[in-house]
Amino acid sequence: MSAPLHPSDIRAAAARIREIAHRTPVMTSRLVDAAAGAHVFFKCENLQRGGAFKIRGAANFIFSIPPADLSKGVVAFYSGNHAQAVAIAAEWSGIQATLVMPADAPRSKVEATRARGATVVIYDRRTESREEKAAAIAAGSGATLVPPFDHPRIIAGQGTAALELLEDAPDLDAIIAPIGGGGLLAGCSIAGHAHNPRLRIFGAEPEIANDTYLSLAAGKPVTIPAPETIADGLRPTRPGDITFPILREHLESIILVTEEEIIATVKFLLLRMKILVEPSGAVPAAALLFRKLPPDVRSAGVILSGGNMDFEHLARL
Amino acid sequence: MSAPLHPSDIRAAAARIREIAHRTPVMTSRLVDAAAGAHVFFKCENLQRGGAFKIRGAANFIFSIPPADLSKGVVAFYSGNHAQAVAIAAEWSGIQATLVMPADAPRSKVEATRARGATVVIYDRRTESREEKAAAIAAGSGATLVPPFDHPRIIAGQGTAALELLEDAPDLDAIIAPIGGGGLLAGCSIAGHAHNPRLRIFGAEPEIANDTYLSLAAGKPVTIPAPETIADGLRPTRPGDITFPILREHLESIILVTEEEIIATVKFLLLRMKILVEPSGAVPAAALLFRKLPPDVRSAGVILSGGNMDFEHLARL
Repeated sequence: MSAPLHPSDIRAAAARIREIAHRTPVMTSRLVDAAAGAHVFFKCENLQRGGAFKIRGAANFIFSIPPADLSKGVVAFYSGNHAQAVAIAAEWSGIQATLVMPADAPRSKVEATRARGATVVIYDRRTESREEKAAAIAAGSGATLVPPFDHPRIIAGQGTAALELLEDAPDLDAIIAPIGGGGLLAGCSIAGHAHNPRLRIFGAEPEIANDTYLSLAAGKPVTIPAPETIADGLRPTRPGDITFPILREHLESIILVTEEEIIATVKFLLLRMKILVEPSGAVPAAALLFRKLPPDVRSAGVILSGGNMDFEHLARL
Repeated sequence: MSAPLHPSDIRAAAARIREIAHRTPVMTSRLVDAAAGAHVFFKCENLQRGGAFKIRGAANFIFSIPPADLSKGVVAFYSGNHAQAVAIAAEWSGIQATLVMPADAPRSKVEATRARGATVVIYDRRTESREEKAAAIAAGSGATLVPPFDHPRIIAGQGTAALELLEDAPDLDAIIAPIGGGGLLAGCSIAGHAHNPRLRIFGAEPEIANDTYLSLAAGKPVTIPAPETIADGLRPTRPGDITFPILREHLESIILVTEEEIIATVKFLLLRMKILVEPSGAVPAAALLFRKLPPDVRSAGVILSGGNMDFEHLARL
């Protein structure tokens, strides 16, 4: 098991990734405040390099690999925003990235990853394990596996989003972020409570992808069946062994939102705020717009975690 | 005829509208620069109050009405962004606004206008003249007509967009903005050349709504048949009597873009930049992304003039 995570690890991550990650803007809107009944500060990670916060953790992890290992490249096994982030950070470092992606991954994502100079290895979801495939590649090449969320360096990188948000809006009552594997919110929790021990920290999950909600109730990580939520970044079926205890220590509660509330929020952010936020990124905003936070939360920072959607997907909403 | 327009009128407008209009952000993107082959600075008027630059001119006009007249209210006869802007500035001033809108205006726009406390008067496009209807209301009530573009105070207000852009990006080679009636670009031209007499100023029009392009060629305003461009804010069929001579004096040229290029640009800005820009606002960005500016333009400021679209319209793209 890795060493515990300290706030100083997040500050070190911020210094490490400064060149590659954008300092994303914090947006406010009277329209949103009126709808939410609170002063809302959106941390726009949809405008982040690669279209999501994932570059923070991936770059912090990759930039920390010892040079002798780094030269052997990296490997990862997600097809979404994490894969893009690994490809971007590897290209930046001048090393080879190998991404293990399912045969039915959107061609646009496969091509975007290849355009970054990464090698894409296809696997069959029905007959192969992506973890085993990635492990075999790592064993054969000496490449380092970049985990999607459950690693202290990934968590520390993601926490830099909250570090920046709290520099821009230091007096927040609360922070809320979506929970997939929990890396983003774990990092933001540690950064948030280092800034202000009384900061209230909330997670947001789709009702049908409530693995962390159930895990908190059970007091230990539980696994749910693969959820068919529109918030495709939040489909991990179990919180991480490292992220879960951090979330349990820091969270006040988890807010659940319906699929309809997620869709309505994507549309609201698009048509009223004029910004594209993917369904996963809209989940914590939905919690606010549908007034699901405790009413005494007067100001809340919301991590809009990503903005990657294809047009057909958007038009179907 | 009104007095000629001086750069000091634009600076005065900036001071007058400071409280009501947002100072919109200027966005840059390596993706856009690579596609355009130039350094591009987007002035994000899609994030402006009311979702478009129109509040600048409407507020500058309304805030300049003498108090005795102001108390009798204002009237305007557009259904789009100008109507919204008039309603917002009137509500801000605590006066009555009457908007003359066609019977087939989108219900969402009628309701948004009414929600601002404005009175909506419906007319029949086929049998009535909106100009006459508005004039009759003005004559009966003493309300002041707020013209959509062809007035020095409207033009001065719109020019504040370029004033802000050039404060944030003072070394631009060029500025480009869309042309409907020409108020936005006329104001931006005067602000631009006051800042730097060698600044190159370009207009952008849809190929099928090229009334100002044809007027510059003819040396006088010409009228075209009502164009069915997707860029519905650029449907005026003739440049204004005040805007046209200003454009003729300041413009290097007008770039024409196809409907397909406009649609592709809306999608690019949405999916890659994560911002919603309406087709009219995407017209000058299309000129850059399709490399229609002279190749020696190394840096260009682009007014993304608005972001108001309904979801059905967007999904049909």
